[in-house]
Amino acid sequence: MYIGYSEAETFLRNCEDAVILTHQSPDGDCIGAGFGLKDILAELGVRSRVVCSDEFPSRYDFMTADSPNEDFEPKTVIAVDIADTKLMGRYEEIYGHRVQLCIDHHESNKNYAEMTLLRSKATAACEVIYNLAKRMEVNISRHCAMCLYTGIATDSGCFKYECTTPRAHEIAAEMKRSYDINFARINRYMFEVKSRGRMLLEAKFCELMEEHIGGKLVIAAVTQEMMSSLGITCDELEGLAPITLQLEGTEVGILMREREPNEFKCSFRSADEVNVSEICKTLGGGGHAKAAGCTVKGDCESVKEQLVEAVRKALA
Amino acid sequence: MYIGYSEAETFLRNCEDAVILTHQSPDGDCIGAGFGLKDILAELGVRSRVVCSDEFPSRYDFMTADSPNEDFEPKTVIAVDIADTKLMGRYEEIYGHRVQLCIDHHESNKNYAEMTLLRSKATAACEVIYNLAKRMEVNISRHCAMCLYTGIATDSGCFKYECTTPRAHEIAAEMKRSYDINFARINRYMFEVKSRGRMLLEAKFCELMEEHIGGKLVIAAVTQEMMSSLGITCDELEGLAPITLQLEGTEVGILMREREPNEFKCSFRSADEVNVSEICKTLGGGGHAKAAGCTVKGDCESVKEQLVEAVRKALA
Repeated sequence: MYIGYSEAETFLRNCEDAVILTHQSPDGDCIGAGFGLKDILAELGVRSRVVCSDEFPSRYDFMTADSPNEDFEPKTVIAVDIADTKLMGRYEEIYGHRVQLCIDHHESNKNYAEMTLLRSKATAACEVIYNLAKRMEVNISRHCAMCLYTGIATDSGCFKYECTTPRAHEIAAEMKRSYDINFARINRYMFEVKSRGRMLLEAKFCELMEEHIGGKLVIAAVTQEMMSSLGITCDELEGLAPITLQLEGTEVGILMREREPNEFKCSFRSADEVNVSEICKTLGGGGHAKAAGCTVKGDCESVKEQLVEAVRKALA
Repeated sequence: MYIGYSEAETFLRNCEDAVILTHQSPDGDCIGAGFGLKDILAELGVRSRVVCSDEFPSRYDFMTADSPNEDFEPKTVIAVDIADTKLMGRYEEIYGHRVQLCIDHHESNKNYAEMTLLRSKATAACEVIYNLAKRMEVNISRHCAMCLYTGIATDSGCFKYECTTPRAHEIAAEMKRSYDINFARINRYMFEVKSRGRMLLEAKFCELMEEHIGGKLVIAAVTQEMMSSLGITCDELEGLAPITLQLEGTEVGILMREREPNEFKCSFRSADEVNVSEICKTLGGGGHAKAAGCTVKGDCESVKEQLVEAVRKALA
């Protein structure tokens, strides 16, 4: 059932001992939303813990490290930034069927929770949570602001993508006026800093980009063999998808990562007009109009062919 | 003489036939400020033309193409985003001594004009001009908004750098609520799209980065010989300086470009705490705390040594 801010407020004010679920392959938005909501619940006197099927990458330590998880048997199950229970990984079986409140911004949300606060035009789940906290007139701590800013910044490509709402800018302005936070440092660590290995990987990655359909589609495929020869893991390729859009004339870019043998996680990005969420739906996935994903089984070449065909149809 | 918004308003309302100067090696901010101000003057019934010592790069066509320059003998000389008459290139001799109004945001502004509206905390000259237009209650056309947005976005690294003020975000929010502009497309063309040649150049550039002072300083030097072997011009290296800060642990990054034989244009960037404007002043240049520049003569190795020494002193 879809609900509004006031029902979500009532629920949060009356809940107890909450587990907050984030999605697998966690990113800045689900981590920011999870730990930001944990701070808000703490202000309300509700203890909570944030869980994820995968480990939180160390670059997000500034959000996760100061928030030790409390040990309790959960009475409340909340999901943030999760469009589909499939994205819960190993927590799907435990909690997927009994999520009471889902706070999300994905148009493709499957409405799996008892109550879903969905704002599909919001930049990030963190934007929805900030608005909720403001309406609740609950104190937003400095740590909470850092978490919510990070989610908004990371999901918008630092205010670059079309999904960046006026509200996202307003929230950033409000935060910059209210908190002594080194936002530039957060941005630097989220968008710029990398190891020399990563830098060389990106340089290498540029060489992998293949143009299809007269340059309208760019695919960069990374197989497990390539990963092991480069000494990197599938997770370390996180964030490379937008690079596929950098060439002039590209309309759709796809990063293919072989997560399991002959199973490719495909991250789609749209430069402007093509709705890649629609394409990914035809391949069993989903997401946003400009950023979506799916998992396709097969060897590298056959997966690539399926992707080219799906994009060709969408462009026709 | 430094002036406030109201004196600038009085001046603009009473001026005639204005030439608007932008700086050499023009960037998004001086072009946006120049053509944005031209639109504002047109609203006031004042004809103007925007001039620059160098050609405007084609990626800024969306700002420059629809604004044909009018032919007249200038009665008014205005400079935007120019800290020093030296940056006017071939226009310095003609106009450098008789600039009536300078609108700028560089702390290092030399106060060379009769009247200078300086807001050194502003993200961009375009932020100052937007504020001025708002105070004047003059209509800001869609084209003008595109120009001013572009200056704010480019000078802030798309709202990423420390110079990004709350006001910059507020202006972006106001514009997104008021205008039907494809901001994401502007951002994409300003920050992402590149030719395959440029992409491979950047990949190559990453290999050029040398670590000094235990990794706290990164220098990437591009000589004329390298440019000709890569088939690129000095201008095409514009925008590579921020890449020097991408390695973990880097505090100062420098791009050295050999603009004339044995004359290097050095673009400094600071990751966080070091004031590179101070360092550049010791080398005869200037700029902002986080982004500054200077020109140093000598062969590649001797220039590099001077830079390393200057940075070593600043870090001590």
